[in-house]
Amino acid sequence: MSLLHDVAHLGHVEVFTPEPEKSLWFFTEILGMTENGTDGDAVYLRTWDDYEHHSLKLTAHHTSGIGHTALRCTSQAALDRRVAAIERTGMGVGWQEGEAGIGPTYAFHDPDGHQIQLYWESKWYDPPQELRPALKNQAQAYPGRGVGVRRLDHVNYLAKKVSQNGDFVSDVLGGRVTEQIMMNDGTISAQWLHFGNKSYDLVYTSDWTGSSARLHHVAFATDTREDILRAADIMLDNGVFIETGPHKHAIQQTFFLYVYEPGGNRIELCNPVARLILAPDWRTITWTETERAKGQAWGLKTIESFHTHGTPPIAGDSR
Amino acid sequence: MSLLHDVAHLGHVEVFTPEPEKSLWFFTEILGMTENGTDGDAVYLRTWDDYEHHSLKLTAHHTSGIGHTALRCTSQAALDRRVAAIERTGMGVGWQEGEAGIGPTYAFHDPDGHQIQLYWESKWYDPPQELRPALKNQAQAYPGRGVGVRRLDHVNYLAKKVSQNGDFVSDVLGGRVTEQIMMNDGTISAQWLHFGNKSYDLVYTSDWTGSSARLHHVAFATDTREDILRAADIMLDNGVFIETGPHKHAIQQTFFLYVYEPGGNRIELCNPVARLILAPDWRTITWTETERAKGQAWGLKTIESFHTHGTPPIAGDSR
Amino acid sequence: MSLLHDVAHLGHVEVFTPEPEKSLWFFTEILGMTENGTDGDAVYLRTWDDYEHHSLKLTAHHTSGIGHTALRCTSQAALDRRVAAIERTGMGVGWQEGEAGIGPTYAFHDPDGHQIQLYWESKWYDPPQELRPALKNQAQAYPGRGVGVRRLDHVNYLAKKVSQNGDFVSDVLGGRVTEQIMMNDGTISAQWLHFGNKSYDLVYTSDWTGSSARLHHVAFATDTREDILRAADIMLDNGVFIETGPHKHAIQQTFFLYVYEPGGNRIELCNPVARLILAPDWRTITWTETERAKGQAWGLKTIESFHTHGTPPIAGDSR
Amino acid sequence: MSLLHDVAHLGHVEVFTPEPEKSLWFFTEILGMTENGTDGDAVYLRTWDDYEHHSLKLTAHHTSGIGHTALRCTSQAALDRRVAAIERTGMGVGWQEGEAGIGPTYAFHDPDGHQIQLYWESKWYDPPQELRPALKNQAQAYPGRGVGVRRLDHVNYLAKKVSQNGDFVSDVLGGRVTEQIMMNDGTISAQWLHFGNKSYDLVYTSDWTGSSARLHHVAFATDTREDILRAADIMLDNGVFIETGPHKHAIQQTFFLYVYEPGGNRIELCNPVARLILAPDWRTITWTETERAKGQAWGLKTIESFHTHGTPPIAGDSR
Repeated sequence: MSLLHDVAHLGHVEVFTPEPEKSLWFFTEILGMTENGTDGDAVYLRTWDDYEHHSLKLTAHHTSGIGHTALRCTSQAALDRRVAAIERTGMGVGWQEGEAGIGPTYAFHDPDGHQIQLYWESKWYDPPQELRPALKNQAQAYPGRGVGVRRLDHVNYLAKKVSQNGDFVSDVLGGRVTEQIMMNDGTISAQWLHFGNKSYDLVYTSDWTGSSARLHHVAFATDTREDILRAADIMLDNGVFIETGPHKHAIQQTFFLYVYEPGGNRIELCNPVARLILAPDWRTITWTETERAKGQAWGLKTIESFHTHGTPPIAGDSR
Repeated sequence: MSLLHDVAHLGHVEVFTPEPEKSLWFFTEILGMTENGTDGDAVYLRTWDDYEHHSLKLTAHHTSGIGHTALRCTSQAALDRRVAAIERTGMGVGWQEGEAGIGPTYAFHDPDGHQIQLYWESKWYDPPQELRPALKNQAQAYPGRGVGVRRLDHVNYLAKKVSQNGDFVSDVLGGRVTEQIMMNDGTISAQWLHFGNKSYDLVYTSDWTGSSARLHHVAFATDTREDILRAADIMLDNGVFIETGPHKHAIQQTFFLYVYEPGGNRIELCNPVARLILAPDWRTITWTETERAKGQAWGLKTIESFHTHGTPPIAGDSR
Repeated sequence: MSLLHDVAHLGHVEVFTPEPEKSLWFFTEILGMTENGTDGDAVYLRTWDDYEHHSLKLTAHHTSGIGHTALRCTSQAALDRRVAAIERTGMGVGWQEGEAGIGPTYAFHDPDGHQIQLYWESKWYDPPQELRPALKNQAQAYPGRGVGVRRLDHVNYLAKKVSQNGDFVSDVLGGRVTEQIMMNDGTISAQWLHFGNKSYDLVYTSDWTGSSARLHHVAFATDTREDILRAADIMLDNGVFIETGPHKHAIQQTFFLYVYEPGGNRIELCNPVARLILAPDWRTITWTETERAKGQAWGLKTIESFHTHGTPPIAGDSR
Repeated sequence: MSLLHDVAHLGHVEVFTPEPEKSLWFFTEILGMTENGTDGDAVYLRTWDDYEHHSLKLTAHHTSGIGHTALRCTSQAALDRRVAAIERTGMGVGWQEGEAGIGPTYAFHDPDGHQIQLYWESKWYDPPQELRPALKNQAQAYPGRGVGVRRLDHVNYLAKKVSQNGDFVSDVLGGRVTEQIMMNDGTISAQWLHFGNKSYDLVYTSDWTGSSARLHHVAFATDTREDILRAADIMLDNGVFIETGPHKHAIQQTFFLYVYEPGGNRIELCNPVARLILAPDWRTITWTETERAKGQAWGLKTIESFHTHGTPPIAGDSR
């Protein structure tokens, strides 16, 4: 599996919340994101290192879950190539007028039904005076509020059939599986895919409930692991539910903290220290059930809700 | 020089500012301190780990500088012993009604004229609901705003004659000199004194201008060195003047950052990592002029303004 | 409960090991301690910030566990006062010639039978040329090997009756209980005691097996939490068993990692960030069973072996 | 300037040293690199996260400086494309048998005369038993010795004409200038170029001496900024000359420390926290002389030797 470089990076993600005010408080006061306009029932939010208009579209909804995921292509030609490839699969929905800050956008679904969008045109963010950074190689001033997340890092989707979706991202979008889990019966139960040097941008995890198009979590990167340790204190003092962590994943070696935002969606704070995938011939790492049974890197057992909680919730999911 | 343990710790310090609104912005929004009442033109401010009413009294004044420094004694008997010792020196001013949260307070001057106060009675801080911490061994919730300073750490006074003042603190208050600088001519140009296991609480630095009762800086401790690195970003983005750092002092090995708050006073953010002075027979470390010429621990040259800038400013101090 | 200041700090601890070579590898190569001589079957080891001869005496033995714990007094007079107090309790063993680097030593037992020693005279460590530090306020050069532990931090004893032992340390040695756990039936199941500004130096934890004089763990402090995160990697790569962590204790808020050294003893790596107990009238924090059921600070459940594993092992302890 | 993705990453660099034993001590004991074979007077060394045979070839030589720099292409086709492009410029030297671990290698010079090599074939590193990591997504066990550098990060070349060389890397190798310095007279005095999401891989800095093919520095990335703070302590205790830092660059915002290894070459330890360049249409940041006069990010003045010291030394360079 080679890396095509037609998709540059994760642009933004739309998250649904049945608790829009509380979720907004979480993303602004707790994560330290900055509001950048609204669109009907949706609020645009940005991390401080995002050069684009927004990193997150927080949309009031009757339930939780994920709306669309937007990926930016590396050029107009790259976008056209990927659209052509998608159309050949029959998964395409069609061109749309882009939302705030974004040009023409091509919408489609992955095999599990998650809405994904591709775009090339993007208006660079121009901060207002009070958010102008001291260093001109930075998108906006550091907010100094809450966790201070730097970047939308990745999205982890729940899916009925992981490999079918991973194959789609590989074959059609030109991503590459850097790591995966294979069960004893040969089933692939999770796959991590990337488009550049970050070790993953999109992840598929097996949905044990057999539902479709659900969200496992959305992740934001912090500058340091210390930011994540402090984030855990902030979550604790502010009554935000900590599901598990801080700890280090064996897979991808990411330092992590998982919480539930007030709308019910699982949010990860992550930091890879200096890890990057530079090898052009990276060999997919396959973890076995036995290896996974050891738990996370330093021995923390994988929490049970990690296999059951997704959004929107299904009957029987108590959280 | 032994340690008497009659003085427990630095309680709070009063800082004068000719720019009360801007200084208040600095201490609350940039350092992340919490307001806890007012007294006329003064605002009481607290770090999140302070068990007492306030760590700082910020008082509007025609100029900058330091008002009083309050030290808490280890018991009523210890307070009485220290008051008796002060009265024998003739430096005593007398008993006062304590300010907010503090019981009867004995005021005096050090030989250089700095106002110091001793007290024993102190009403423990009881946070309002919105500042109640999740862990009951913590004074208040972590504010998640700006630098998030944990503790008032130490005060560094400028003085005409350093050793005269250091001797006073040793002999009368029962402190101990942990480190000092001796010039080639035998003059002591700076002394660091402590009352417990922190390696210093009060510092005297030679005032080259020959003035009296001035302030070199007030210091606040952060939990980590990463907090100080981030603080430097926050200062930069908010237009707060960074004088020097972050770097590591050779003396005391403290990781530091020096800035000027809008009122003109020098403020240090400091972190000692895990350093403590546990030895009951600690031997004062004396640094020579030659050793000081090497600069700070990792080679940073000591900045010129460190020897000239104090508050209140004197004629010819451009900042 | 007030703090007497007759005991200055934990001096060193003797640990027994049935695997002396492997344990020595652990303490030198993994923790980064420095050998400083031998005494028969024992090796003296030091952390790099210890001003005394040694922090740990590692003694070959038929089983694991703790030998003696040595506490340094603040003066000869303080030592004499404590010896007199101990003799009144009938727990005294008597004066011994001190071991390497230490003067006359008074041995006694706590009520549970742990061997403790008090001493005053101590020869300051003088590093050999190759271990001479660049900064003269540091005991020895930083070794740059393994974890690089800075300081022996505390000892946690298992005891049949916690409060009986905590009372002994309070009443006879002048320590103070900073935090404790009280069961629903009123039993105190753990107590943390301190002698200075560190929030604890000696800890008693209930031994559910009803054994006597056992060890729960010995702890070493690192400079930073990052050191502990890295330590976990080092343990993992070197096959050292990680019991639990890294995480943050609710009690005392210490950031921790627990491992078993090859001799079977539990070793903690700990970091308090900037936390100190400065209040002379500190109010003991009492945690209830309900509060403890919440797990550690950020929600990690307390590991089962924490209540069962001690050294030396007893029948039925599989590790 | 777009990014071509034909060059994947910096593979390794050859450094010359007139002090081979001392330099080897520096790279293994101080930086914590691992030896992986020799070739005549050269020693192959690796960082622990390198998937290839070596990150550094340390070659005994009559003087200091840089030998060749090896860049890995993303495929055989990409290599062939770049070789064709180089041959069109007339800068090609020709194909060579690759050194240890590397397949057929194409050698050429940049306009300033630095030797550069391109290759595709690379034998993945297979660690011996004692260096086998616990996690199979890691190249080798973490050494736990000295600084523990993770990755060869970038090379900074001195060049007579910066833009001529930057244009060559852009036009012929497909790199992109992320940031640069422009003097008041319009001259480009430094350019930072990258091939993937790291914000720079190759840098050209103006050589004020008018020499050719010299080295400014070679940089290694650490996992954290704390690693760099600790590195400064290690350098200090081991007598390694610290030129400047730790501090944060305004350009690229990299946290840095510069030292001279015993052979005289400047070595940087660097950490970008979570910064990556994800924008496919990144806009080159151009810094003016006025902006540069402000010093580094937090105000540290750029050290004078930064403009004068390079290797090999020229007459009049005292270090």
